[in-house]
Amino acid sequence: MQEATQVLAALCLMFVAAKVLGYLSERLNQPSVVGEILAGVLIGPSVLGWVQPTGFIDILAELAVIVLLFRVGLEVNLRDMMEVGLLALGVAVVGVVLPFLAGAGLVAYGLQGELPVALFMGAAMVATSVGITARVLSDLGQLQRRESRTILGAAVIDDVLGLLVLAMVAGIATAGAVSWGDLAGTIGATVAFVAGVLVVARPLFARFSRRLPDPGATPTAFFVAVALMLGLSALAAQIGLAAIVGAFFAGLIVELGDRQPALEQQVGPVAEFLVPFFFASVGMKVELGAFVNPETLGLTAAVLGLAIITKVAAGWLVASRSGWLSSTLIGVGMMPRGEVGIIVALMGLSLGVIDESLYSVVVAMSIATTIVAPPILKAILNRLVRQEAGSYAGESSRTVLEGQGGH
Amino acid sequence: MQEATQVLAALCLMFVAAKVLGYLSERLNQPSVVGEILAGVLIGPSVLGWVQPTGFIDILAELAVIVLLFRVGLEVNLRDMMEVGLLALGVAVVGVVLPFLAGAGLVAYGLQGELPVALFMGAAMVATSVGITARVLSDLGQLQRRESRTILGAAVIDDVLGLLVLAMVAGIATAGAVSWGDLAGTIGATVAFVAGVLVVARPLFARFSRRLPDPGATPTAFFVAVALMLGLSALAAQIGLAAIVGAFFAGLIVELGDRQPALEQQVGPVAEFLVPFFFASVGMKVELGAFVNPETLGLTAAVLGLAIITKVAAGWLVASRSGWLSSTLIGVGMMPRGEVGIIVALMGLSLGVIDESLYSVVVAMSIATTIVAPPILKAILNRLVRQEAGSYAGESSRTVLEGQGGH
Repeated sequence: MQEATQVLAALCLMFVAAKVLGYLSERLNQPSVVGEILAGVLIGPSVLGWVQPTGFIDILAELAVIVLLFRVGLEVNLRDMMEVGLLALGVAVVGVVLPFLAGAGLVAYGLQGELPVALFMGAAMVATSVGITARVLSDLGQLQRRESRTILGAAVIDDVLGLLVLAMVAGIATAGAVSWGDLAGTIGATVAFVAGVLVVARPLFARFSRRLPDPGATPTAFFVAVALMLGLSALAAQIGLAAIVGAFFAGLIVELGDRQPALEQQVGPVAEFLVPFFFASVGMKVELGAFVNPETLGLTAAVLGLAIITKVAAGWLVASRSGWLSSTLIGVGMMPRGEVGIIVALMGLSLGVIDESLYSVVVAMSIATTIVAPPILKAILNRLVRQEAGSYAGESSRTVLEGQGGH
Repeated sequence: MQEATQVLAALCLMFVAAKVLGYLSERLNQPSVVGEILAGVLIGPSVLGWVQPTGFIDILAELAVIVLLFRVGLEVNLRDMMEVGLLALGVAVVGVVLPFLAGAGLVAYGLQGELPVALFMGAAMVATSVGITARVLSDLGQLQRRESRTILGAAVIDDVLGLLVLAMVAGIATAGAVSWGDLAGTIGATVAFVAGVLVVARPLFARFSRRLPDPGATPTAFFVAVALMLGLSALAAQIGLAAIVGAFFAGLIVELGDRQPALEQQVGPVAEFLVPFFFASVGMKVELGAFVNPETLGLTAAVLGLAIITKVAAGWLVASRSGWLSSTLIGVGMMPRGEVGIIVALMGLSLGVIDESLYSVVVAMSIATTIVAPPILKAILNRLVRQEAGSYAGESSRTVLEGQGGH
C-alpha cells in the first residue's frame, strides 16, 4: 500500500509535468514529445530528483509504448506497408551495416580496442527505437506518407536484424565463436512469428470481423484488438524481438473497414492516458553526468556523429530517388536509438566486455539521438508539406504543420 | 526486460480470461464482474497457477479501480449526492457500528478472546469495498438511482469511519490506549481533504471549465481530469484514506455541462482496458484453502453470516422508508469487504494481535462477501426495475436489465 501511494504521487507528477512541458514545447513550435522527455529529465534523478525510476514505472512505460505502436499500426494499412517493403528492407539493411561498421571500426582502429569490444559497440549503434519517430509522425498527422511507412517498415526489419547481430556478437564475446544453432533458432522463431501473424492471425481476424454483428461490434472489436495487442507483444518479447514490434503487427492486422474509426476512437484515449508515462520515463533515465565527463566528451562526440550520419546516409543511399528531403526524412526517422542502444550496452557491461566509460558513451549517444531527432523531423516535414502545397496550388503558401492539440 | 516479458504474458492471460468468463457470466444472466473474478481464481495460484500476483499487477489493479471510481464519479452529480447525504451518513454509521459490535462481540464472548483481538476483528468487519458494487450499478446503467447514490456516499463515509476505527484499535493494540493525538490528526487531515476538494478544487475547476475554448476543449479537459484523478487519489492515499475515495471525489467535481459526454467517452475506453485487471487480480488473491479448513469452517460461517446480516440490517434500519427492496439493495451494496477487510486483518497479523487462523477467516469472509454480492444486487435491481415499469405502465411487463455489452 505504501508503495502504491508513492507510485500514485509519482504518476501524477510525471503526467502533469509531461503534459505541461509538452504543451510549452508545442507553443515553441517543437514536437510535444521533446517537452515530455525534458519533463522526465527535470523531475528525474538528474535534476530535481522528485521521481525515481522504479520497476513499476518501467513496465508501465513499456505498456504505454506498446499501446502507442499498436495505435500506429491501426492507422497504417498492411497493403500500403507491403508497397514500400523493398525500400524499407534496403533502408534497414544499409542502416544496420553502416552504423555497425562505424561503431566497430571506431573501437577497433580508433581506440585499438579488442574484437569483442568493437563488436558490442557496433551492435549498440545498430538499434532503432521507433517510438519517438512514430509519435512525431502521428502527432503531425503524417503517418500515411510514403516516407513514414518506409520508416516504420525499416524499423521493424531493423529490430529483427539487430536481434541477429546481437546474437552473433554475444556468441563471439562469450564463447569465442558465433553460435550457429542459436542464430538459426532466432531466425526460425522470427520467421515463424511473422508468418504466423500474416498467414494465421490475419485471415482469422478478417473472418471474425466479417461475422461481427453491426451494433454490438465495438466492444467486442475492442476486446479482440486489445487481446491481440497484448498477445503478440508478449510473443514478440518471448522470442527476443521488441514487444512493440508485436504490437505494431497486431495493429496492422486489425482491419475493420468502416468500423475502424470507432475502434481508433477507443484506443486513442488509452494512448493519451498512458503514453506520457513512456516519454517522461525516457527522460527520467537520462544521466546528465554522462554528457559532461571531460574524459569521454571527445569520444561521445565522435560516436554521436557517426550514429547520426550513418543512419542519415542509409536514407540517402537507398531512398535517393525520393528526393533529398524525403531521403533525409527517412534517415532522421531511423536515428533515435532510445532504450534499445542502452540495453545492448548494458548487456555488454554485464558480460564484462565493455567498461563503464564506454557504457556511458553509448548511453549519451542513445539519449542525444533520441532528443535531437524530433525537432529535425518536424522541420523537414514542414518543408515537405510546404513544397507539396506550393507545387499543387502553384504558390508558396505558408502551410505549417501543427501538432494535434493534446496528444 | 525479462520481467516485462512475463508481465505482458500475464496481462494478456488475465485480460482474455476476464473478458471471456465475464461474457459467459452475462450469458448466464449474472453480472460480468462475477466471471471476471472467477477468471482470476481460475488462472491464479489457487487453481491453475498460470499467473502469480506480482507487485506490478497489484499497482496496476489499484490504478484500474481508481479509473473505475473516477468514471463513476463523473456519472454522478455532486448535487444529487448531497441530496442523499443524511441518509448515506446514517447508513454508513449504522453500517460501521453493527459489524464492529458483531465482530468484536463474537471474539470477546464467543471465543473468549482478548480485547485487542476482539477490536481488530471488529475493525476488519467494518470495511466496505465499493468497487464491486459500483461496477455492477454502472454496468446495469443504474448509477443515477437514489439507492445507488446512497451506497456510494455511504461507502465514502464508511471509509473515513473505518480509518478512524482502525486508528483507535491500532492505538489500543500497540500502546494500550487510544492515541488521541493521532486520531485528531487523522480527523483533521480528512476534514481538510474533503473541504479542500469542495471549497478549493471544485470552484477552481468550474472557473477553468468556463474558460475552455469550445473546439480545443476535449484534450485539455481530459488532461485536467486525469491530473485531478491521479492527484486526489495520491492525496487521499497519503492521509490514509482509500485512493479510490480521492478518485471518486475527482470525478464528482469534474462538471463540464454539455461537454461531459465527450469526456466520459474518453475515460470509458481507459476503464474498459484497465478494469478487467482489477477484478481478475481480486480473484487471483483468493486462497481456496482458506474456505476448506475444517477447524475454522464453523467460525468462518459465523463471521460471514454476521458480516452479511449486519450490513443488510444497516440498510433496513436506516432506509426502511424507501421500501423493503430498496433498503435491502442499499445493505447488500455495502456488503463486499474486498481487499479492505484483508488489509485490516493483515495489519493485525503483522502486529501479532490476531493469529493465522483468524486471519484466514477474515480473508474467507472478505472474499465471500465480494463474490456473493453482485448476483444479489442484480436480482434485486431487476425486481425493482420490473416493479417500477409495472407501476408506471400499469402492467407487469417483463423488463429485465441487461449488462451493457463489453463492459
